[in-house]
Amino acid sequence: MAYNLLKGKRGIIFGALDEKSIAWKVAQVAHAEGATFVLSNAPLAMRMGEINKLAEATGSQIVPADATSVEDLTNLFTQAQEILGGKIDFVLHSIGMSPNIRKNKPYGDLNYDWFMKSIDVSALSFHKVMHVAEKLDAMNEYGSILALSYIAAQRVFPDYTDMAQAKAMLESIARSYGHRFGKLKKVRVNTISQSPTKTTAGTGVGGFDAFFDYADKMSPLGNASAEDCANYCVTLFSDFTRQVTMQNLMHDGGFSSMGISEDVVEVLEANAPKN
Amino acid sequence: MAYNLLKGKRGIIFGALDEKSIAWKVAQVAHAEGATFVLSNAPLAMRMGEINKLAEATGSQIVPADATSVEDLTNLFTQAQEILGGKIDFVLHSIGMSPNIRKNKPYGDLNYDWFMKSIDVSALSFHKVMHVAEKLDAMNEYGSILALSYIAAQRVFPDYTDMAQAKAMLESIARSYGHRFGKLKKVRVNTISQSPTKTTAGTGVGGFDAFFDYADKMSPLGNASAEDCANYCVTLFSDFTRQVTMQNLMHDGGFSSMGISEDVVEVLEANAPKN
Amino acid sequence: MAYNLLKGKRGIIFGALDEKSIAWKVAQVAHAEGATFVLSNAPLAMRMGEINKLAEATGSQIVPADATSVEDLTNLFTQAQEILGGKIDFVLHSIGMSPNIRKNKPYGDLNYDWFMKSIDVSALSFHKVMHVAEKLDAMNEYGSILALSYIAAQRVFPDYTDMAQAKAMLESIARSYGHRFGKLKKVRVNTISQSPTKTTAGTGVGGFDAFFDYADKMSPLGNASAEDCANYCVTLFSDFTRQVTMQNLMHDGGFSSMGISEDVVEVLEANAPKN
Amino acid sequence: MAYNLLKGKRGIIFGALDEKSIAWKVAQVAHAEGATFVLSNAPLAMRMGEINKLAEATGSQIVPADATSVEDLTNLFTQAQEILGGKIDFVLHSIGMSPNIRKNKPYGDLNYDWFMKSIDVSALSFHKVMHVAEKLDAMNEYGSILALSYIAAQRVFPDYTDMAQAKAMLESIARSYGHRFGKLKKVRVNTISQSPTKTTAGTGVGGFDAFFDYADKMSPLGNASAEDCANYCVTLFSDFTRQVTMQNLMHDGGFSSMGISEDVVEVLEANAPKN
Repeated sequence: MAYNLLKGKRGIIFGALDEKSIAWKVAQVAHAEGATFVLSNAPLAMRMGEINKLAEATGSQIVPADATSVEDLTNLFTQAQEILGGKIDFVLHSIGMSPNIRKNKPYGDLNYDWFMKSIDVSALSFHKVMHVAEKLDAMNEYGSILALSYIAAQRVFPDYTDMAQAKAMLESIARSYGHRFGKLKKVRVNTISQSPTKTTAGTGVGGFDAFFDYADKMSPLGNASAEDCANYCVTLFSDFTRQVTMQNLMHDGGFSSMGISEDVVEVLEANAPKN
Repeated sequence: MAYNLLKGKRGIIFGALDEKSIAWKVAQVAHAEGATFVLSNAPLAMRMGEINKLAEATGSQIVPADATSVEDLTNLFTQAQEILGGKIDFVLHSIGMSPNIRKNKPYGDLNYDWFMKSIDVSALSFHKVMHVAEKLDAMNEYGSILALSYIAAQRVFPDYTDMAQAKAMLESIARSYGHRFGKLKKVRVNTISQSPTKTTAGTGVGGFDAFFDYADKMSPLGNASAEDCANYCVTLFSDFTRQVTMQNLMHDGGFSSMGISEDVVEVLEANAPKN
Repeated sequence: MAYNLLKGKRGIIFGALDEKSIAWKVAQVAHAEGATFVLSNAPLAMRMGEINKLAEATGSQIVPADATSVEDLTNLFTQAQEILGGKIDFVLHSIGMSPNIRKNKPYGDLNYDWFMKSIDVSALSFHKVMHVAEKLDAMNEYGSILALSYIAAQRVFPDYTDMAQAKAMLESIARSYGHRFGKLKKVRVNTISQSPTKTTAGTGVGGFDAFFDYADKMSPLGNASAEDCANYCVTLFSDFTRQVTMQNLMHDGGFSSMGISEDVVEVLEANAPKN
Repeated sequence: MAYNLLKGKRGIIFGALDEKSIAWKVAQVAHAEGATFVLSNAPLAMRMGEINKLAEATGSQIVPADATSVEDLTNLFTQAQEILGGKIDFVLHSIGMSPNIRKNKPYGDLNYDWFMKSIDVSALSFHKVMHVAEKLDAMNEYGSILALSYIAAQRVFPDYTDMAQAKAMLESIARSYGHRFGKLKKVRVNTISQSPTKTTAGTGVGGFDAFFDYADKMSPLGNASAEDCANYCVTLFSDFTRQVTMQNLMHDGGFSSMGISEDVVEVLEANAPKN
């Protein structure tokens, strides 16, 4: 597809780690749709070889930033406006990390310093991004700010441990700052709650394959892919969605509205104890 | 348990079909907790031998009423006040029936007359009950009106077909009339969204056993039983919950807040194709 | 805007009454974005002079249909495919009417025949549309079906009376049929919950001006207009949103996520009793 | 009321600051209903003169604990079991504090260290309480753990700033730990989302009077009082609600289900600009 849907729009895209990343796909689609943007990632998370390829393919520059650092973000938004030649129209926040998940801490035995780290990286960084954007008056009117979330914010997925809290907070920040930025500059702020996705980050969560398959079986359209998600993000950056704000938008092939599916029943019945 | 929690309270209980019925259990617990009440059921649905036993055990009288008939309901509320010696403090609406489900019509091929019948019996009857109670000024201040719902109002359970719409409407009526009755008489109106329950009605839904087991495996506390539900109803009739209104209250051992459970994963994994 | 976002897509648009109608605006934007479509409306509701103008401006034909009649809908879907030269890619259901509201019946005194009429016209018609589309195998894979709803499905707006139940049912049908159509043909089904809108239908609800202003004051971006809504609908018909299904999407300038706003507080405080 | 509803039950009640506190009222009602319990509060927050009166009136002992300290909580749960003579049946978490609110920091200019403090005190402490209870195996089977929340977790109340995030996280923790504790020990975990309440803490939030009055006008039953809330808490500690878990329970006179009310419209109309 290529409709010039984002023609003339300038953006910042956080979190393109490698070609499996949703942010990577968003960059590709945004580029195809006529946007220009800056790519950003945490200095530690960046795999320069990888992200350079994306930068080249999309004619973008890379500005590293630790999204938990107001200083780094200030530098990023300042540079991005210089590079792109004006204020910012859209931002994608695709950032999340939990040391407790990485180190397989069970939910009953979380390390609380790591918990605070999960929160800072995965949720509070979203506030900081908007805070800096507001301070620098870096957003254009009718701009669009988007973060990626997961339905663990509403329902329990046992292996997701403290990321459930991080995503609940992320969505809450979207509402609170969405109110503020809406009043100030007509900027809208939303989260997309995406199907489990086979990204490098996603597959790090324990039991990922099991719940990927379960979600796929539960969703009438199957799981939404990273490419699908990128397409959806682009509609939310476009001028067609100017009044959508403070929403958590399920992008999941129908998963969130299913109670049970025939496909899951089938597996359960196949496996039921025979009398 | 017996705490006299409903001492001095007068009620009307709809829908005690047989001893598996939730309404039957509510009558037993309400009686044990000191309430007096009238039992009502549709003339056609009543199995007199059965319900007479309950009436005897709880010292109650039976007043048959078709809950879709304003005339029958008017007679019921009039008689109930005479029998019980005063205005009504609580009402339980445990009524639901779908000809489309009974006759196994798939959702894509509903009979629309039967659809309207499902709606009239399972949802609109709740409006009629409150309408009549209001007209006759039959409710005491701070009374409590309760209907039983199911999570199919929010999420899709394929075999539940048009009852999903009936329950969505039932919950909507609870909100709308809850507003009205709250302003008029401080009466609260709520629905309880109960686990799948092995009642005579419940087990008539196709694939019931499969989704009963699935729900049980998904719920950290297991499915809530009819007895558990009766206990919960009684708290909502008591004076301890006077400010709870216009709510749909999940009574499901945690089902509604689960995304996936270890028990379900286990079955799915046991059944996964081996490579 | 004109991006050819719907190039090559064929649709059916219900409910363009006059130039204030949301459906009217959807037709205009869909036309600008390259779609071809058939306009439909109830024979009684059509103001031929008006809708002819729209048909002319968008190069469309008009096929009248009572959306509560399976026969009329069958004729409509059959003719539409002939006129447009192929299967249907998108459907807009913008249909609603309550005799109880028109005749100012208070919620405690609804006419139940009219209630059933409200339901049939405003909600069940959506099931019938999809039922007929399925029967005729009239939808293309990855098609998109959309109905317009209102937040009265979730929260009480006293003057909205039985339309609250109709909208709750409408959204429930979107989920249930969304599951079915998703599995069958990858077709997605959603509702948009739109701000109060100054359409000819909308302004017929009692106290409309008061709640229009209230909603506007509560929404950080103000109420979404009919034009905004049309733009949003078009994204949901486009190929950018293929995995969004069974959702009720708030399109309301943030209203649904607000608890209180400064603008409302200001009015309330200005009016507070002085000590 | 006095029904012996909590006869034989042992509890821990956090957060009774003074006689306006909800926790204070819970202690009074729980005592009247036959429970024994330990009172706890942060050493810094305790006003010894005040809480001693409550301890005396309810025959309770006080064990100070900083709820952000695992060490303090370990001491508390250990001592409480010794004092009460057995495992714990119920816990009330009524703890919340935001330095950003206290110091009037606008949402766009939060102090992030204080943000983390708000989170730690108001939300993460709830995880720590359960973590310690689990570690010490201090809860009886079928116990009940409850925290007090506010609807700012779902909707924006501008003056509530970072407490919105804290409450969103608190409710998420209730779900996540509710799953865990349910599987382990049949313990249920819920939050009550209470009306704005004229406690010493509550009234510290800016614009409190305005949104108290607004909520009161929006709620068909008016705002729920601290006494009402105490009654509701007691039902959730009782054996009548054993299958209610992982829920956020609105206790608000209907506020959460209202879109607009006649009382609010009346004020807005009285104040509308005259033409």
